[in-house]
Amino acid sequence: MEKRLEVCLTPALLDLYAIEDSIVVVIDILRATSSIVYGINNGANAIIPVAQVEDCLMYAEQGYLLAAERNGEVVEGYDFGNSPFSYTNEKVGGKTVVLTTTNGTKAMHLANSRAYQVVLGSFLNLDSLCDWLTAQHKNVLLLCAGWKDNFNLEDTLFAGAVVSKIRNDFTHFDDSSVAAEDIYQLAKDDLRAYLHKSSHSHRLAALNIEEDVKFCLQLNICNAIPVLLGERLVAL
Amino acid sequence: MEKRLEVCLTPALLDLYAIEDSIVVVIDILRATSSIVYGINNGANAIIPVAQVEDCLMYAEQGYLLAAERNGEVVEGYDFGNSPFSYTNEKVGGKTVVLTTTNGTKAMHLANSRAYQVVLGSFLNLDSLCDWLTAQHKNVLLLCAGWKDNFNLEDTLFAGAVVSKIRNDFTHFDDSSVAAEDIYQLAKDDLRAYLHKSSHSHRLAALNIEEDVKFCLQLNICNAIPVLLGERLVAL
Repeated sequence: MEKRLEVCLTPALLDLYAIEDSIVVVIDILRATSSIVYGINNGANAIIPVAQVEDCLMYAEQGYLLAAERNGEVVEGYDFGNSPFSYTNEKVGGKTVVLTTTNGTKAMHLANSRAYQVVLGSFLNLDSLCDWLTAQHKNVLLLCAGWKDNFNLEDTLFAGAVVSKIRNDFTHFDDSSVAAEDIYQLAKDDLRAYLHKSSHSHRLAALNIEEDVKFCLQLNICNAIPVLLGERLVAL
Repeated sequence: MEKRLEVCLTPALLDLYAIEDSIVVVIDILRATSSIVYGINNGANAIIPVAQVEDCLMYAEQGYLLAAERNGEVVEGYDFGNSPFSYTNEKVGGKTVVLTTTNGTKAMHLANSRAYQVVLGSFLNLDSLCDWLTAQHKNVLLLCAGWKDNFNLEDTLFAGAVVSKIRNDFTHFDDSSVAAEDIYQLAKDDLRAYLHKSSHSHRLAALNIEEDVKFCLQLNICNAIPVLLGERLVAL
């Protein structure tokens, strides 16, 4: 049976893929999908991704925790920002969190309108995600959230990690899956060092979130796989 | 002085780049920009790229040579197809050729509406192109024509070859230029073998143009650099 494994390098290219019969894995390594995987793994009831800080406000009276950052600082009046360190069991266990994320939210909503199913990936849940994907016997599209609709290295690296782990279960690949896997093989021994070559990494360094970056590059500290049901991300 | 060297992986992402002050190098290795470089190098007066076979017809009465293929075969009534072997001095010297190319034409027209200048690149003129680019003291955007608006390996490989040769003259790079250079470094010792991993290569194999592919991967057999002036590609 034909089974496709493809990598969409940015949400701007998603229209080029037939995903009605595909599981779409949304990837926004720095930091949305890493923080969400960690939060769901730590017992959050649900996480609701929204695109703008202002979008959080409509949830303010429902008793949800609100997470919003501007320029690396927690927005005044919000509970916390986008750092994965905010998504501990102590802070989010049993709670619903509304999280602002520009690139990630856009990718999730675009995929959700057409895909068979939308789940989230990060280095934190790499192995459990890959085990689950291989058990589904469906086509898989790895969707990099990218940076402002363009290609970025960290999301592509993660897509390549998934390709390298599950490719034997698939028969058809696109050119971007080949490239992503090769870049991952080059970078895998020291992901942080490789990302120092990235423009995005330099931008992040200016935001002083180096500890967050290191955290997001850890492998397999979570088993949870967030799945998008309507507007809510919950544990699969 | 800040000087940017960027790689746009498909024409669908071109809007994300500020190119008003950039030289844009259009790349469509298999086979449009390779054939055009070869034809201009062999003394063609001009080559006019058009998107559809039907677009050639408006030029039919002007005494131009018409090149059109469908499914790898020369269209009946046309002079030749897109194979670089048709662009010899004997065939195109002193002539104007109208060439059908879907991906390449789209990329050239999109770039031409905004860029400072549009030139063509291929492995055939790699060194002369790179020498010229470094002498211009302008920003450079390497624009991969891709395949039906999506990423492809062969155009990205060539972009990476240019990055590896001229990067020392630039100060700012995007993530895709980093990825393209790394993929080129992996592939450079045997470009043809690397492209066997590509979906596009498999498609091309079905078209029986293996000799064309080998031809297009030759390094530095041409010095000409085609530049787009209005709708016409001429020698720089």
